[in-house]
Amino acid sequence: MENKTIKIGIAGVGTVGCGVINLLKRNNEEIFKRTGFNIKVVCISAKNKDKKRDCNVDQYNFYTDPLKMIENEDINILVELIGGESIARNLVKKSLEKNIHVVTANKALIALHGNEISDLAQKNNCDVAFEASVAGAVPIIKVIKESLNANKIEWIAGIINGTTNFILTSMLKTKKDFKDVLLEAQELGYAESDPSFDVGGIDAAHKLTILSSISFGINLNFDAIYVEGIENIELDDLNYAKELGYVIKHLAIARSNESGVELRVHPCLIPNSRLIANVDGVKNAVVVSADASGPTLYYGAGAGSYATASSVVSDIINVSKNIVYNSNGNLPLLNYQPNKLKKVNILKIEQIKSRYYLRIRVTNKPGVLADITKILGGKSISIESILQKEDLVNDANVPIVLVTHEVLEKNIIEALSSIENLDVVKGKIVKIRIEELN
Amino acid sequence: MENKTIKIGIAGVGTVGCGVINLLKRNNEEIFKRTGFNIKVVCISAKNKDKKRDCNVDQYNFYTDPLKMIENEDINILVELIGGESIARNLVKKSLEKNIHVVTANKALIALHGNEISDLAQKNNCDVAFEASVAGAVPIIKVIKESLNANKIEWIAGIINGTTNFILTSMLKTKKDFKDVLLEAQELGYAESDPSFDVGGIDAAHKLTILSSISFGINLNFDAIYVEGIENIELDDLNYAKELGYVIKHLAIARSNESGVELRVHPCLIPNSRLIANVDGVKNAVVVSADASGPTLYYGAGAGSYATASSVVSDIINVSKNIVYNSNGNLPLLNYQPNKLKKVNILKIEQIKSRYYLRIRVTNKPGVLADITKILGGKSISIESILQKEDLVNDANVPIVLVTHEVLEKNIIEALSSIENLDVVKGKIVKIRIEELN
Repeated sequence: MENKTIKIGIAGVGTVGCGVINLLKRNNEEIFKRTGFNIKVVCISAKNKDKKRDCNVDQYNFYTDPLKMIENEDINILVELIGGESIARNLVKKSLEKNIHVVTANKALIALHGNEISDLAQKNNCDVAFEASVAGAVPIIKVIKESLNANKIEWIAGIINGTTNFILTSMLKTKKDFKDVLLEAQELGYAESDPSFDVGGIDAAHKLTILSSISFGINLNFDAIYVEGIENIELDDLNYAKELGYVIKHLAIARSNESGVELRVHPCLIPNSRLIANVDGVKNAVVVSADASGPTLYYGAGAGSYATASSVVSDIINVSKNIVYNSNGNLPLLNYQPNKLKKVNILKIEQIKSRYYLRIRVTNKPGVLADITKILGGKSISIESILQKEDLVNDANVPIVLVTHEVLEKNIIEALSSIENLDVVKGKIVKIRIEELN
Repeated sequence: MENKTIKIGIAGVGTVGCGVINLLKRNNEEIFKRTGFNIKVVCISAKNKDKKRDCNVDQYNFYTDPLKMIENEDINILVELIGGESIARNLVKKSLEKNIHVVTANKALIALHGNEISDLAQKNNCDVAFEASVAGAVPIIKVIKESLNANKIEWIAGIINGTTNFILTSMLKTKKDFKDVLLEAQELGYAESDPSFDVGGIDAAHKLTILSSISFGINLNFDAIYVEGIENIELDDLNYAKELGYVIKHLAIARSNESGVELRVHPCLIPNSRLIANVDGVKNAVVVSADASGPTLYYGAGAGSYATASSVVSDIINVSKNIVYNSNGNLPLLNYQPNKLKKVNILKIEQIKSRYYLRIRVTNKPGVLADITKILGGKSISIESILQKEDLVNDANVPIVLVTHEVLEKNIIEALSSIENLDVVKGKIVKIRIEELN
């Protein structure tokens, strides 16, 4: 075994690619002491060889076309770090057809094309590993697939987008508005110049697609996920939440219950006594609640060159071990035997039940609260608590903050629509779901 | 593969054993959908068949002698849940000699006899899995062995004994003393009638022995661990710590640095902004800091029938997979190839560096503080902050709380010995190490 060498090719040498190259070099001896075999990068591909990089690429066979690379080179594993969908998808499919195993950090690729990739992998008895696609250094994929594998998983709730968590944490700490903090996040490199993918929730939805599939044994269902971003969260809401004993986090939630599976990404109020409520800044954390283990939580860096490389190289080592021991295919891409995937009903957001935080701006007139509560009562929505910050008698435009008991979202939507039609109500009502996570 | 059945025998049918039997039954179909093969309990052993249990044992071949069981039965995996050292050790050795793979939840067995068990396992190409031996449902063993395997691990810090964490959390919350809270913990079933194993730190030291070995690639070194319990922590210390921005936790710490490896179990002050500072009650959590991943944290139930069974059955599934795919032996017991284990210097407690919290009871006389600081200064110990709660002028017996800068423990020990000899100092000085965990 000590003479065995696994040959890998890396497609895409950006931040993560350089991390992978550097890490494999730096910890080569440590990895060998654990595994007893060698892992060797033989070739890489990138658009431009001479680009300034944080790693040295001179000793590898270089290609500008990754497809040429997998055609020409005799490699065991392709490491796909190009990102995006079109080139990566084609490259991964071609690799599997050539019986080359795949390691990828590409969440969009798996979330949107994982079903067909899974079929191809099975057909060719190839491994496809994608630990780095969700939560960076946090090994949440492997934990769900190989450590919680004795359990029925009940629900997952995760802070899996560092940008949104940084912004929400920072707003509360610095008492600044969303827009100001977003600018700061962009300056610090925590947000893209076009931040919509992160702050709008799409990135988290890609990741939730993956986590929910491997947790519940269902196909990847990106289109079925309900997605809300954090663009409309105001500093006032963060402050009111704090007063109520909650913190607002942008969560990705998947829950399996009798009527189906809930898949949703949106801001939530969570009790500040929960461990995940204390996860601040760009860090990621995922809570998995399962029938035997109970809730467990996994926390760490969600991005970064080396943090992501930690997961990519771990995948490389584990796939290499399967090659050395001739046990590839022992872990299906979607965690269930492909012919055992379940058909489930994905619930629409109107069908979920939740408690709600509501912030309503009203013109102060006698009977305002009575009008509002009457409409809520008509939809079977009962109120748990009311927060009135300003004096209703002396202020012409005041916020009323309500917390409701649990109710069907459909009822809330209908009630809010009626309340917004009241003359005394100004603008759109802020509605944030409350998750107890217990 | 779908016709393949893995046969297991369970030795010891107490709380965890019943959890394993019930969980395998309850989630049998879910596990099959993931793996594609069957796992079947064929035999069990226990002292008494007719004991009242939370599981039905009638359908299994029953033995009172586990050695007879492994002689008579044709099983693939022995699940050792007897606990303790002598019978379990003999049984596990005999099993490996008969090429039966082993799953165990027995921390004492691995911590104290894991080196010889590792040799035997390698010799017979058998798997030995022990996820449940540390931190119950939290898959910290597999994470270190298979998810952080691209990293050099720098340090680990864990709350890995639920009893001590429950007591410390409860003291601070209820403002009661150690002894009162210990009684409550015993009534709740969170502490044994003889609690010394838990509150004295031995249980945590067993677990740290295991975690440090698989993290650093060293032999199991239980005898080299420095151990302090929480018996001397007073409510005053918890309150002063809080005032300083810290919380006191009983931590198991392993750290690798240039001069060697630190292995120690003792109470610590940790900044209350750290996520692990918010881990309360009987829960467990481990932070692993590694060169690529950075710090990651793993949290969940550290004990309980089903929580522990979650890890035991996960081990059973993963070892079964190795049997089905003929890939046993792919993961050495101690995580490094046996011939690649490192010889390292385990540091004595005098050789570590730390910041310290000191609580000194003094009779109030002019110049007391000057006497104390002079002795500290003579040992190169500089003071970061002083907390004086009561009025030195009006009280004859007052506490002085000091926080030092980082210094060699040897110097602190010598300085405290001199200070305790001062006439004005009453009783033993309370010394608690401060860990920043960053």
